[in-house]
Amino acid sequence: MMKAAFSLLMLLVALSSAFGKFVPKSGKRIPQTLSRGWGDQLIWAQTYEEALFWSRSKNRPLIVIFHLEDCPHSKALKKVFSEDDAILKKLDEEFVVLNLMYETTDKHLSPDGQYVPRIIFVDPSMTVRADIVGRYSNRLYAYEPSDIKLLLDNMKKALKLLKSEL
Amino acid sequence: MMKAAFSLLMLLVALSSAFGKFVPKSGKRIPQTLSRGWGDQLIWAQTYEEALFWSRSKNRPLIVIFHLEDCPHSKALKKVFSEDDAILKKLDEEFVVLNLMYETTDKHLSPDGQYVPRIIFVDPSMTVRADIVGRYSNRLYAYEPSDIKLLLDNMKKALKLLKSEL
Repeated sequence: MMKAAFSLLMLLVALSSAFGKFVPKSGKRIPQTLSRGWGDQLIWAQTYEEALFWSRSKNRPLIVIFHLEDCPHSKALKKVFSEDDAILKKLDEEFVVLNLMYETTDKHLSPDGQYVPRIIFVDPSMTVRADIVGRYSNRLYAYEPSDIKLLLDNMKKALKLLKSEL
Repeated sequence: MMKAAFSLLMLLVALSSAFGKFVPKSGKRIPQTLSRGWGDQLIWAQTYEEALFWSRSKNRPLIVIFHLEDCPHSKALKKVFSEDDAILKKLDEEFVVLNLMYETTDKHLSPDGQYVPRIIFVDPSMTVRADIVGRYSNRLYAYEPSDIKLLLDNMKKALKLLKSEL
């Protein structure tokens, strides 16, 4: 019995050393996630092209979050966002989600400039919903952590617009 | 002592239920990684725009891997690729890496069509290296698991071309 257990242990050691041996010079890294901390349980699109494809084929509005990992405003919003069950549940069940740290070549995604954090809604017909805005007149698509309720309202607006157009 | 341990346990339970409470109806998911299994220890670009930016700013060639998660040829190549230390080390130290499951809008990334698995090299001047090919005349940028040595040679070619042009 002990011998069998020892053999199994040795097998596991052998397996673990046979796979994924490569370790960078700077030390082992934590694998990057597609969520980047904006909600590990959501299914994130990787690119804008992929997100548009999903949006169209599932007939769901798309939410695009532009952010930067070392921007304090992005981080503060991300914390509130990723802990808000109502937001996460609605996104998971009725939206296509994409978070980006680099701008795309599509100018429609920056109606009033390229800044972070910035949240843009796109409907399944691939039209950017420039009318769904936050509360800041100088940066229409910016949200502060205290605007999370407004963000949820805007998500509902994106869904409502969608339904009324069907 | 026991009481303190119990309090700590309760605190941990409270904390764990306060954060990340959202669980999808279909059950808890494993967070998606950017590597998608092609090498968790590499630092992957998320989008082509991001990859081009890194390639230019670091003066490193870019390797773009097109694949699909349910394609057996992609999976077979991924297994060999992600276990090849020589490949991973060179990519980590001298390349910018990107893996995509959806095509971009850039036609230069599909010189002879859109198929998977397909590996395209791009140099920091943003020129697609259409001359760096595999061994199949009908699908120039396809690689089989047995072509992993050729892939490594092609990586060296991408680096050499880069140097000879400086």
